[in-house]
Amino acid sequence: MNLHGRSFIGGILVEESVATFRAISPLDNRPLDPEFHECALGAVAEALMRAEEAFPVYARITPNARAAFLERIAEEIARTGDALIDRAHRETGLSAERLVGERGRTVNQLRLFAGVVRDGSWCDARIDRAMPERQPLPRLDIRRMLAPLGPVIVFGASNFPLAFSVAGGDTASALAAGCPVIVKAHRGHPGTSEIVAAAIVRAVEASGLPGGVFSMLHGSGEQIGVALVRHPLARAAGFTGSRAGGRALFDAAASRPEPIPVFAEMSSLNPVFILPGAMRERGEQIALGLKGSVTMGAGQFCTKPGLVFGVGGPDLQAMTEALEKGIRETAPATMLHAGICNAYRSGIDSMAKVPGVVALAMSDAEALPDRTHGEAVLFTTDIDDFLLRPKLHEEVFGPCTLLVTAGSLSDLVRVAQRMEGQLTATIHATESDLADAADLIGILRRKAGRLVLNGYPTGVEVCPAMHHGGPYPATTDERFTSVGTAAIQRWARPVCFQNFPAALLPEELRDENPCGLVRMIDGKFTLASV
Amino acid sequence: MNLHGRSFIGGILVEESVATFRAISPLDNRPLDPEFHECALGAVAEALMRAEEAFPVYARITPNARAAFLERIAEEIARTGDALIDRAHRETGLSAERLVGERGRTVNQLRLFAGVVRDGSWCDARIDRAMPERQPLPRLDIRRMLAPLGPVIVFGASNFPLAFSVAGGDTASALAAGCPVIVKAHRGHPGTSEIVAAAIVRAVEASGLPGGVFSMLHGSGEQIGVALVRHPLARAAGFTGSRAGGRALFDAAASRPEPIPVFAEMSSLNPVFILPGAMRERGEQIALGLKGSVTMGAGQFCTKPGLVFGVGGPDLQAMTEALEKGIRETAPATMLHAGICNAYRSGIDSMAKVPGVVALAMSDAEALPDRTHGEAVLFTTDIDDFLLRPKLHEEVFGPCTLLVTAGSLSDLVRVAQRMEGQLTATIHATESDLADAADLIGILRRKAGRLVLNGYPTGVEVCPAMHHGGPYPATTDERFTSVGTAAIQRWARPVCFQNFPAALLPEELRDENPCGLVRMIDGKFTLASV
Repeated sequence: MNLHGRSFIGGILVEESVATFRAISPLDNRPLDPEFHECALGAVAEALMRAEEAFPVYARITPNARAAFLERIAEEIARTGDALIDRAHRETGLSAERLVGERGRTVNQLRLFAGVVRDGSWCDARIDRAMPERQPLPRLDIRRMLAPLGPVIVFGASNFPLAFSVAGGDTASALAAGCPVIVKAHRGHPGTSEIVAAAIVRAVEASGLPGGVFSMLHGSGEQIGVALVRHPLARAAGFTGSRAGGRALFDAAASRPEPIPVFAEMSSLNPVFILPGAMRERGEQIALGLKGSVTMGAGQFCTKPGLVFGVGGPDLQAMTEALEKGIRETAPATMLHAGICNAYRSGIDSMAKVPGVVALAMSDAEALPDRTHGEAVLFTTDIDDFLLRPKLHEEVFGPCTLLVTAGSLSDLVRVAQRMEGQLTATIHATESDLADAADLIGILRRKAGRLVLNGYPTGVEVCPAMHHGGPYPATTDERFTSVGTAAIQRWARPVCFQNFPAALLPEELRDENPCGLVRMIDGKFTLASV
Repeated sequence: MNLHGRSFIGGILVEESVATFRAISPLDNRPLDPEFHECALGAVAEALMRAEEAFPVYARITPNARAAFLERIAEEIARTGDALIDRAHRETGLSAERLVGERGRTVNQLRLFAGVVRDGSWCDARIDRAMPERQPLPRLDIRRMLAPLGPVIVFGASNFPLAFSVAGGDTASALAAGCPVIVKAHRGHPGTSEIVAAAIVRAVEASGLPGGVFSMLHGSGEQIGVALVRHPLARAAGFTGSRAGGRALFDAAASRPEPIPVFAEMSSLNPVFILPGAMRERGEQIALGLKGSVTMGAGQFCTKPGLVFGVGGPDLQAMTEALEKGIRETAPATMLHAGICNAYRSGIDSMAKVPGVVALAMSDAEALPDRTHGEAVLFTTDIDDFLLRPKLHEEVFGPCTLLVTAGSLSDLVRVAQRMEGQLTATIHATESDLADAADLIGILRRKAGRLVLNGYPTGVEVCPAMHHGGPYPATTDERFTSVGTAAIQRWARPVCFQNFPAALLPEELRDENPCGLVRMIDGKFTLASV
């Protein structure tokens, strides 16, 4: 496949270039062809103006047309064949098998949102009928529904080059809501981004939509990324990445003359609490599961368990030995790019130097720098040192975890109380463990977006009940999810119509319920017409 | 009624005082007894710690118990009798009739939220059942619902001393969600605030709830208010007031180490567009309605129409004359306090000095400064001057409006495009006007939270379909409403449970649906059990 290395603004390739860069394959640390062109700042305004022009048209097409567009994107991406997988493999080091699976998830996600758009109930339609006879004042007819915000900025994530990048969950949910999307491509996988962007552009054209519905820009986050978020026409942004990067975007958005929401998913340690009964009954089995969850995909998941808590004693000792063995046997794996690999190495070096922390085990095989290898590492410490050392409360992105030995169940409660916000918190427990775990669960409900019982936090299901979010610093807005159908709610706002005749109301709010929605009429949910 | 002038922290009166102040009656500019005591900063931490302690208890009481608590507050407030009305009248200058009505709204609002809590469907319960046979991987049981955020800060508003103050919409909706509330009392009506706070404290005690569920502090917004919003235990804040005040709180919240949401409802001009057919058919009737909407309550509503647009010609002239007459006949009215009155006077003085602006009419009767009078004023200008002068795009809080003469319907579209975010936008139109109004309506849908047809924006119905919000600067978060039952959603976040046994799930998420909720099961809304 020939790549052109250019940004897309509304289906047109951007000619102007202020700098070039190449993807570096983490597999061998060699640059890949072609050169990619960074946009000038003018491209930001151009893309946003095109998006703004496209918005009124795109927001008003029928739900069926919007769903068909999402399905067309899915189809175009499904058709990218080996070219996409090969390029993504070379750019990210992820295995072809993983990438085929991730493409499947990406395509299914688009189809799932097409279903959400066809169903339509996400728009939370509400109707309060007029009461002309009410005393002392009549009530007027009032109706409201969610409507799309406007142009949305999406930042491609390095660790999901398909499912959380150009056509990933943020893009799919924003397009589903009726918002044009401008993607800031991740510099780690620009060729993958181009192939997917071209698929979206083909779908835009085939669907007869205005080009401004989708743009993708290459450039640096500090320049192009921040400029996108600060542009007056941008209405919201979605980001998955580092805490520093997410916070910088949040701050840029919050300090605008008109602040806009930034949904940044940033940093999570995903603590796992193994209660004494579970440790005794199936410690070794948990060790095996944990090892998989920590090292899968070279530990590059936002839900990787970075902290494991257990109560000291022989059962913990047995579990630890099994985990040590699993970590030693795990081969070093190619990480996404040199930046992440270097950050991982410096993260594990720093952790090894924290007083009271011991590196218990690491990959037996040697990590090869020219393959951008990250080795698996198991650290351990005790709960007092953990509580004393802020460094141990920071995420280290990669295949390592820190096993913390507690003295008692009440230590676990104490440490949970001191923990920052998390995407997930996991408990391994027997039934009798659970009888004593109410306090722990109560605290974890406040600290995490998703509580997992007797499982592992990695492997995030894309479904209506999923919540992939959590208190800061897990995300900048714990009220919204970035995975699952509820993600669409990030890109919408209510609009209310008072005393409007049927002809001027959106179809979703008309008496006869032509869209077949579940609506709230006079305070009660119903499928009925008015 | 004897007032003590003290703040309440969890039902206990605060002894420490760093300064005192008195309410000044706008009716005669005289100070009222007693002295009120401003809290020291230590009270902020104390109130938040009490709220945090109370939270786990309050969040877990049954929906019935929470609803009964709200009803008990309503009952206690309804019982405050003439003492509350007298004090509020003296502190705010609002008429006893208006205040009796506002107390009714306050009480009804609490009862409405009790109904929302009993119904329970607001928590958006979602269940995705396990699919153990799914290939390539089984799906686990995943359930989620909204849960309360934690301690919420509420700022009393001056213009609704009951319905948007100590026990107003923000407090009612936050308590309904399960959040403890700390109110920063408005300095304009401290005695009114004390009477209402005491009613809430009695309800807390009678309901056997921990005292920390409710606190109310006296002090300055810049000190106590900002400190409340910046305290690490505060999880969200609600505010109704000035643009500068709301933005300061928003900025304080966004720059915290852990940012929290601030729902500030701030500034809106509530433009009214009178289309040519309506102007011809019923211009004088509209003039009468507008005059009422502009001058009601001395123009001190956030939805007061501050801008009126019409196309020049004899019909507009006739409407204008009728409006002038109405304004002249409107007696100057006592405003809420000297600060608001002075700001109003300086606002109308500045407007009169803007080039191209003419003061067409004002109250015939003299405005008496010692009665804190604001006179009604009608200004006019043409559309070019309006577009040129930023000053004319700022809210002037009080009984004035600016009538803008346009050359054509397309001028109205142009001016709508240039407008900032609004709470409301109103159109007066005949059926044939509406045939040409699609562009105007399309733009106004993006600019305002609520569109009113052939009516007036004042008189905000408290109901499920109401949206009282809008793009910045109308509010800091256009995705949420501060009036109506949907206001409860501001104070909640999703919590997700993966693979949890029934006994550990909240009742709302159990298979048998013991709460009788409408829930989303496998993506479909249903009342059924699993």
